[in-house]
This record gives sequence, C-alpha cells and structure tokens, in this order.
Amino acid sequence: MVTIAVTSESADEPRIAVSPDTVKKLTALGAKVRIESGAGARSRFSDDAYRAAGADVVTRSEAIHGADILLAVRRPSIEDVAALKPGAIVAAMIDPYGDRSALAALAGTGATVFSMEFMPRTTRAQSMDVLSSQANLAGYKAVVDGAAMFGQALPMMMTPAGTVPAAKAFIMGVGVAGLQAIATARRLGAQVTATDVRPATKEQVQSLGAKFIAVEDEEFKQAQTAAGYAKPMSPEYQAKQAELVAQHVKNQDLVITTALIPGRPAPKLISRAMIESMKPGAVIVDLAAERGGNTELTEPGKTIETPNGVRIFAPLNLAGSIAVNASSLYAKNLLAFLDGTMFDKKEKTLAVNWDDELIRGTLVAKGGQIVHPNLQTQAS
Amino acid sequence: MVTIAVTSESADEPRIAVSPDTVKKLTALGAKVRIESGAGARSRFSDDAYRAAGADVVTRSEAIHGADILLAVRRPSIEDVAALKPGAIVAAMIDPYGDRSALAALAGTGATVFSMEFMPRTTRAQSMDVLSSQANLAGYKAVVDGAAMFGQALPMMMTPAGTVPAAKAFIMGVGVAGLQAIATARRLGAQVTATDVRPATKEQVQSLGAKFIAVEDEEFKQAQTAAGYAKPMSPEYQAKQAELVAQHVKNQDLVITTALIPGRPAPKLISRAMIESMKPGAVIVDLAAERGGNTELTEPGKTIETPNGVRIFAPLNLAGSIAVNASSLYAKNLLAFLDGTMFDKKEKTLAVNWDDELIRGTLVAKGGQIVHPNLQTQAS
Repeated sequence: MVTIAVTSESADEPRIAVSPDTVKKLTALGAKVRIESGAGARSRFSDDAYRAAGADVVTRSEAIHGADILLAVRRPSIEDVAALKPGAIVAAMIDPYGDRSALAALAGTGATVFSMEFMPRTTRAQSMDVLSSQANLAGYKAVVDGAAMFGQALPMMMTPAGTVPAAKAFIMGVGVAGLQAIATARRLGAQVTATDVRPATKEQVQSLGAKFIAVEDEEFKQAQTAAGYAKPMSPEYQAKQAELVAQHVKNQDLVITTALIPGRPAPKLISRAMIESMKPGAVIVDLAAERGGNTELTEPGKTIETPNGVRIFAPLNLAGSIAVNASSLYAKNLLAFLDGTMFDKKEKTLAVNWDDELIRGTLVAKGGQIVHPNLQTQAS
Repeated sequence: MVTIAVTSESADEPRIAVSPDTVKKLTALGAKVRIESGAGARSRFSDDAYRAAGADVVTRSEAIHGADILLAVRRPSIEDVAALKPGAIVAAMIDPYGDRSALAALAGTGATVFSMEFMPRTTRAQSMDVLSSQANLAGYKAVVDGAAMFGQALPMMMTPAGTVPAAKAFIMGVGVAGLQAIATARRLGAQVTATDVRPATKEQVQSLGAKFIAVEDEEFKQAQTAAGYAKPMSPEYQAKQAELVAQHVKNQDLVITTALIPGRPAPKLISRAMIESMKPGAVIVDLAAERGGNTELTEPGKTIETPNGVRIFAPLNLAGSIAVNASSLYAKNLLAFLDGTMFDKKEKTLAVNWDDELIRGTLVAKGGQIVHPNLQTQAS
C-alpha cells in the first residue's frame, strides 16, 4: 500500500495539495491518503469530505511518519521530510531558485523531490502545469480585487443623471495570467489594452476584444514571424516601445502587471516617473510581487498609496485568495502527474518511470543531491 | 450673487455634493460656489480643479458664513446651518426619518431644508433622483466586493486541469440596485437568479439574462397584471414563496439583498435558519445594513462569519466606496434640481418656484417648522 501524506500549509498559504475529488482518484490508484485534520479548512474541504473520499484524517505526525509520498503546496520543512520513509517522494511548488542552502538541506534528507514549477510545457503535461492553473486564477482575481479597490466603476453606465465612463485597464504581460486578466476586465466592461514583448500575443489580445499596444514597425513585424517567442529587439526598438508604454500608462485607471522570468527578479516594467505621471485614484495590481514586483515602487505583500494618489497592490499569493478553486486545480495537477508517471496501475504499486521526460524535467533532488540541470550552474 | 457653500463631509462619508463639472454649470447660472479646501479629495476632485471651474476654495467657515445655499451629501450639523444666511436653502440626503429631535432642531434654525430622498419618482425628476443614482452604483459594487471576498471565481473556466464551475448568485429585491447587481454578476459570468415581491420585475430580470425565482401560481399571474406594484399577496402565497426562497438560498454562493422600505426597518428576507442551511464559503452582501439589514444576523457596518462559514458583509455606504462616480452623479442630481426649480435664469438670481411639485415634494422644513406631510404623522 502506497501511503501519501498531506499536511496543513503555513499560515500564509491557504491552499492544500489534495481535494476530496483527487483523494478518491489517488485511492483508486492503490494509495492510502493520510491527511492532517483541518488541513483543507481554508479551502473549504472538510475532514468529513476527505474521509468520505477514502482518506485517513489523522494528526500531522501520523500523516507524515513513514509515508511514501508527501504532497504539498509550498516547499515542506526539513523536519517533515525527514520523518517520511527514507528516499520518499516529495512533490510541491518547491521554489527551486529560492533559498539555496535550505534546498540543499532538503536534498540532504535523501528525499526524491519534484518541483512542479519545472513541469515541461508540453501538450501531455498541460494537465499538470501548476504555473498555468494558478496564474489563470490570479489573473482573474487581480482584476476583481483591483475593481474592488478602484474608486470608480469599470463599465460604462448610462444613467438619467449622466454617463459614467468606462474605466481604462492596461494588462502588461500576456501569459496565462494576463490573458485571464484581459478577459475578466472585458467582462466587467473596462476598455482594455495589453502589451507583451512577444509579438505572437497580438492575435490573442485581439481575440479577447482588447487592443494591443506596441510599436509595430518593420522590426516588430519580422519578429512576429518567429513562432511564440520574440527575437531580441534592437535598443532603438526597445526605447520606442518604452516611450509608447509610458505615454499610454499615464491615462490608465487599472494596470495589471504579470511579467515573471523564472529564477530571476521580476523586470521593472513601470518606473517611478511613470507612476508619478498617473492619475490620482489609479490602481496598479502587481502580480510579480513575489519576485520583487514589476514596478519600481512595489512593496511585496503590501498596498501602498503614492503621494500622487496611485495605489499599488502587490499580493504575494493571489491564487491562494481563491483557495477553493486554486486547491482544486492544483490537486488535479498533482493527481495527473502522479497518475501519469508514478504508478503501476495493474499492481497498484509505486513505479516511478525514471525515463519519463516529465519526471526528468521536474526532479530536483535524489539520493541526497540536487540533480536538476537548471540548478547545477548556480551551485556555489 | 447667489452664494453656494460646500463643505467636507464627516470621516465616514467620502462623497461631496459638487463636482468641478457641476461647479461650472452652477457658476453659469449666476452662483458663486465656495468650497472648503480639500473637501473633494476623497472623490479625487482637487482644489485646483474646483478653482479652474470657477469656485472659491476657502476655509470651512468662509464657505458657510452667510451663504444662500448649502449643498451637502448627509444631513449637515445645526452649527453649520445656523451660520448660513437666515432662511438659507439646504439640500442634502437629510435622512428625513432618522433622529427626529435633531431634525426638529435643524428646522428650528429657520433654514429651508430639502430632502433629496423625497424626490418624486416622475419622469421629469429622474435626473434628480439621488436614491437611484446611488443605488445603481451600490448594486455594482456589491457584486464586485462580494466577488473579491468569495473564495472562488464567479465565471466558469475551462482549464487543462479541469473545469471551474460558475458561481451561483442570487439577487433579492429587484429595484435599481438589484438590477445593476444582476447585470454585474452576469458580466462576471455567474449563474444569476433573482426574486422580488413585485411580479412586474420578472420581465426585467429575464431581460438581463437571469432567472426569476417565485411561486408562479394563478394568484401570482393575476398580481402581475397590476402595473408596477404588487397587490398584497395572501398568507398562503407568502408561505409558499418563503419556502421556495429558503430551498433556493441553500445552494447559493453569493447572495445580494437590496430590500429597503422608506422610513421603516429593512425586512428580514433571510432568517438565521436559512443562513445555517447555506454552504461554507458563501457570501451575503446586505445592502440594507443602514436600516438594520435584510438578514437576521446582519451586523451593520461589519463583516461577520457564521459558525457554518457564511460571511455577511453589511456595508453602510457602498456607493461612497466608489466616491468618484457617486459624487459625480450626486452632484449632477443636485445641479438638475437647483437648475430646474430654484433659479431665474434671465436675472441670474435665486427664485424658488414654491408651486413646483418637486419643491413641494422635497421640502422638509421652512420658517422654523417641519413641513413635509410624510413627517407630520410621526410627530409626537
């Protein structure tokens, strides 16, 4: 019997790594899921619901002790991992580029650690892609929270006393989060524009009914032919584009920034001068706060108001603020990963396919060592 | 020269009674608007913008002293009104049924007091209807704030990891606020239902793409023929309707209640038992909080969470939380009222038309007495 442990996350992480739905399916694979009592409460999953799905609801140490697998949202503690079966599997959002020495210590426990953030972006792995599933929800919530903070309505309203104009929303960075932010701002009736360094996003932006903002000269048009990723643009182009964005930001009511580069600080898309040029009452929602933020004035985890009345909201865990959905989808991502790569379905036993590109792509530590190629070059 | 005074409201009232736009138009009518410095700040109207529109930006006492007219959002203090010209005009949301003895004292100053809440609901007065202009914004904000509080997304989302189901929103009371709440919840992709005691609202609900919830028996169908207002329904009908609503509320994620009866406590649409039957994580936004609330557990001005995990958000001034729009529309309502009933446009002088039904309908106090018919019967 394969045992899977799931525990409560820290105080600032309301999500959980399994849902009653995925517990049922993990149980059908031949696993026994042992969940710390109350671990699902912040995602509105009750102990009773987990029990009904086939889990054992137990204390934290009972859940962990000697387990074959630990499923978590965030990087678990050394203590928790050390209490698992030797060489046990850990799958979580490990934050592989964060706190290197703690990661080495985690590897030192001998656990087999998978970082869900490293999931290859292949068609087969789409259902296991935690960055996408969580970014989609964050993009939605960024607009809803921004709208709640904004001192005006987003949609145009025709009333007998006069017309309330539509708010102007500008989405910077058109990945999964940005696309959902565009869609949500459009739903709410805002006048939406978006920009991205990848010319191929232009069509996506337009397909959602928003306007694409970029300097569309010959250089841009040639870059657009490259499928998916942008060519490096010339300094001249970059300067023109920056000037265009600076002029555009001035008149915006709601700006959502979503630019993240794996393993590196977030790019500063919005300078202090740009913020100072904005209108009082404008709201910036910075989805890159956990990597330092996309604006020069962002204070990660806080909401600040600048002297000229611009508010910058920089949440560290926006997907976690819609924990019910975020946990459900994250749990399904983990289930798809385990189901697709780790189980012998006939024998109902653990049988990790070490040759699987998804296993190789996400494996961070094994046998006491950090083994992922992305992490080798950074080792000191 | 007619002088109009406008001052800062209290700490919990961010709105203001004039906008730069209406100052310009009041100035064109021959008035000099005197605004307390900083009074528009919470509505993002700067002193400079008011000055550019023709206002004098002064101290509070300079604004008030000897003015012909005081425009306000909430009922002003006796001290402020006493400092105006004797018999001066005051127009505000007086809260005519609130604090009777303070209202008598206000009347005792000799001021001519108009209560904007008493504006007759005629075609001509639509542009002066402050209850409608503010309720519309409150209905929008109720859904946005409810969505921000709710631990799930409102729209259905199809993702590679699975489908996020659409949230169920239920709007109780289909007046101006309720209609805007329906429209906003629909915009955000919720599955929306609504109910009202007036059968004529069914078509309005359906025209917004929502489902009308009511016991539609023969009695209901006959009541529907009466234009606009419901006939009193039989106790049997009321019991059937209450049971239907109780069954319906159980499965809702977001409930917006909007039932207000002028001068009376808000009806208790949602009982303790109904709240106890709801799902953990469900959110109720109670727009009737300032009249005690539409649920048995509402605590006006607070957000509470019940033991079964239902949150009840009971804001006292939701329109004020989108102050830019709320002040703009309120200011336009006041402008339309003054423009339509109080000015001799050739002579550019004050010339109240005492025979105007709108003046008669809104006049609360004059010559030291409370004069409105609705307030006579309640006098002790």
